[in-house]
This record gives sequence, structure tokens and C-alpha cells, in this order.
Amino acid sequence: MNNPDPLKNIRIVLSQPSHPGNVGAAARAMKTMGMTDLVLVNPRAFPHPAAHARAAGAIDLLDAARVTGTLDAALTGTVFAAATSSRQREFRHRLMPVREAAQELIAVARSGCVAVVFGNETAGLTREEAGRCQLLAAIPADPDYLSLNLAAAVQVFCYELRVASGVTLPELPPEFEPAAFEDVERFYAHLEQTLVAIDFLDPENPKRLMQRLRRLFARARLEREEVSILRGILGAVDQLRSR
Amino acid sequence: MNNPDPLKNIRIVLSQPSHPGNVGAAARAMKTMGMTDLVLVNPRAFPHPAAHARAAGAIDLLDAARVTGTLDAALTGTVFAAATSSRQREFRHRLMPVREAAQELIAVARSGCVAVVFGNETAGLTREEAGRCQLLAAIPADPDYLSLNLAAAVQVFCYELRVASGVTLPELPPEFEPAAFEDVERFYAHLEQTLVAIDFLDPENPKRLMQRLRRLFARARLEREEVSILRGILGAVDQLRSR
Repeated sequence: MNNPDPLKNIRIVLSQPSHPGNVGAAARAMKTMGMTDLVLVNPRAFPHPAAHARAAGAIDLLDAARVTGTLDAALTGTVFAAATSSRQREFRHRLMPVREAAQELIAVARSGCVAVVFGNETAGLTREEAGRCQLLAAIPADPDYLSLNLAAAVQVFCYELRVASGVTLPELPPEFEPAAFEDVERFYAHLEQTLVAIDFLDPENPKRLMQRLRRLFARARLEREEVSILRGILGAVDQLRSR
Repeated sequence: MNNPDPLKNIRIVLSQPSHPGNVGAAARAMKTMGMTDLVLVNPRAFPHPAAHARAAGAIDLLDAARVTGTLDAALTGTVFAAATSSRQREFRHRLMPVREAAQELIAVARSGCVAVVFGNETAGLTREEAGRCQLLAAIPADPDYLSLNLAAAVQVFCYELRVASGVTLPELPPEFEPAAFEDVERFYAHLEQTLVAIDFLDPENPKRLMQRLRRLFARARLEREEVSILRGILGAVDQLRSR
């Protein structure tokens, strides 16, 4: 089961979800992050129109979702499973932050199927359910209000799994070309010249004006086209003066 | 405005949200991550029972939320703002991954109020809206299905902001004490002795059995109490033999 995309080796298991809307929203969350394998253990109501409504464009995941009667059946075929919990003291397991857990899960998912198990909205996972997993993971949340919505928790886990898998944002399209050093320097020279010409900068007493302007544009990390635009503006100012 | 908790200096701005349920779910997402300042620009319907229903225990945030008629009014008082987008090519801005953006936002939020601006569910932010922000941030998602739910996106952003602020999971309670080296070694010695005694391990031809068992327990990072339990089991086996 060597899958080149570890995200396709990740199974999201929802144990006894009460609200079909959450199941749909969880499917949508999974799909946005490139995951497809959804298993439901004893859902209260499924299939259900509310699940389909909240799934938006992820209906295909709902249609392919499997329903099992036990967590053991849901975990069959996996080689590693993480239980999720918002609460620290419930289980006698080390609680690992989701970011760290995602790295372990992705490492295993490069060669085998791994599961992330979410409990019921109100009750969470039972001790017995968590005990079937090798790892207990949590999303760091405000200790005074730990109540992440189920689908929101699925979204954060799937997001971290995607980032851990090494997928990043697509590269900038070539039109966003950074400006070359020499072009930026020519712009600064032009700018200085124009500022002197319009009597804004006194060459006898320049103070630190150019340094401050350089600092500003440096932070902006100028693009090639922007330099053209800025030089165009300076050119227009120059022409104004020579009229 | 030096606030010891940068998360309290972060304003979440929802521009023209269509679905009141998303506003409630966004408030809940914020509160789970320790954020409280919510501003709505021209919401289609607010207040609304659906918002309250989805907010769960975060009704206080909804009650305190401010409604403005323009994004400019929503950004008044902030010193830095990030626009959010799922789409790469829409704006002529560099698109920064949410993790990196969260670090910049938290750095500024240590001394001033910063905003994260989310657009309408369908249309996203307009060019004009994004142009009022210094930074454009995105959640890395599957290019074939970028459609994160609005509240799900708020959850991921707020989660990354919380992690970037340096808040981590609470420390393990003291009962989960890792086992000391010498206790683990005594356990291995006891294990080996018992395995020999029950004829499972041939001391003349031990192969690599103990090494493999060590590897297993090493990965488990044994706790003190677990070592006691394991030694108890070995003791019980020893007693069985001597009967």
C-alpha cells in the first residue's frame, strides 16, 4: 500500500456523531485538504439532508463514506491511529499537540493506512475507544473554552496533516517577478534626482531621507512591474517640470 | 495599547457574511482560541437566531460584536491587517501561508491592534477590500477543491494565531511520571530472566530478542507506573512457575 500521496492513506473516523450537519461539514473540511476516506461509527442519522447541505461540493465523500457498527471495524486495515481529545486529564496517555501528531501520522501514512478518530460532539471518545489508538492528540485551545465544533476540529487536523505532508501553496505565477537589484538601484537614483529637482531634497543637507525611503521600499520587496510604475511616475514628474 | 496577551489584540473582521450560522460558528472558533474581538461589515442578517445557535458557548462574543457599514470603519484603530483568500491569482499581492502570516500578525499584535479580514462566503474579498490590508494570507488547500467554509477558515487562522502566540498545551499532570533509566533497566533484566525461565529465550542462542523488545518499549517511552505494572506481571509469571 505504498501511496505516493500520504493524504490518501489517511482515514477520518467519526465515532457516534450526533449531528448530520457536522458530518457534512467534516467531509467538506477533509476534501479541502485533499483527504477522501471517511468512516462513520454508528452515526445517529446518516445519510441525512443536513449532511448533504453542509458538505457543499464534497458530496462525493459522503456518498463514498462507510458506516460501521464498531470502532474496531472502522480501524480494520489501518496500521496506526490517533485519538483526538480536547481534554487533558481524561486519558492516561500523553497528549500530543496536533502539529506534532500530524508529523508522526504522515510519516506512517507514507507506507500504510492511518486513522484519526474523533468522538461524539458532547461526550468525546470513551476510554475504550481512545485505548485502541497509539496516540492521543489535541488542538491547543483556550482552557476556559475548549469547545471546538467537531467539523472545526476535523478542519484543523486535516490542515495540519496537509501541511505536514509537505504540500505548500502553489508558486507565484511568473508575472509576479521580483525586481532585480540593479533596477531597484536605478529607481532609487531616479527618485533622488527627482526629489532634488522638485526641491524636496536638499543635496547640501540630505539628512536621512533616502535611507528612510529605501527602508520603506525594502520592506515592500518591490516587484519588477512596480519599479516600472514608480519610474513612470518619476518620469511624469520630470516632464511636468520641464514643461 | 501594550497588551500582555497578543490574542486580545486581534480583531476578526467578517466582511458581508451571508449566512448568520457562519457568523455564530466563527465566534465559537475565535473563542476556542482565546480571541474575542469580532467585527461584522454589512452582515446580511445579524443578530439572527441561527448565529446564536451555532455560537454554542460563545454568545458573549456575538453580543459584543460590532457591526459597521464599511471595511474602513471596521479597521479603524488597527495598525496592521491581513486579508484572507483561497485564490492565488486574484490579487497582485504575494500570498503568504497562514502559518507565516500568523507569526507576522502576532509580532505586531504584541504592541497594537491587528485585523484578519475574511470576505463573503461566495465572492471572497474584493480587490478594494484586499487593497486596504498589508498582507494577503491563505490556507494551503487542495487546488481542486479550495472551498473552505468561512467558519472553518476562521478556525484555522485563529488556531495558527494561538500557536504563533506561544501558547501550548498544558503540561502533563505529575501523575504521568516517566520511568527512570535504572527502573527500566531493572525491568529489562527481570524480563530477560523470566523469558529464560519460561524457556522462551534460549541463553545459548538469544538471537536479537531482547534488542527487539527494548526497541518496542523504548518507543513507548515507559512511565514509572507502567514499569511497576510490567514487573508485577513478571512477578506473577515467576510465582506461577515456582508453584
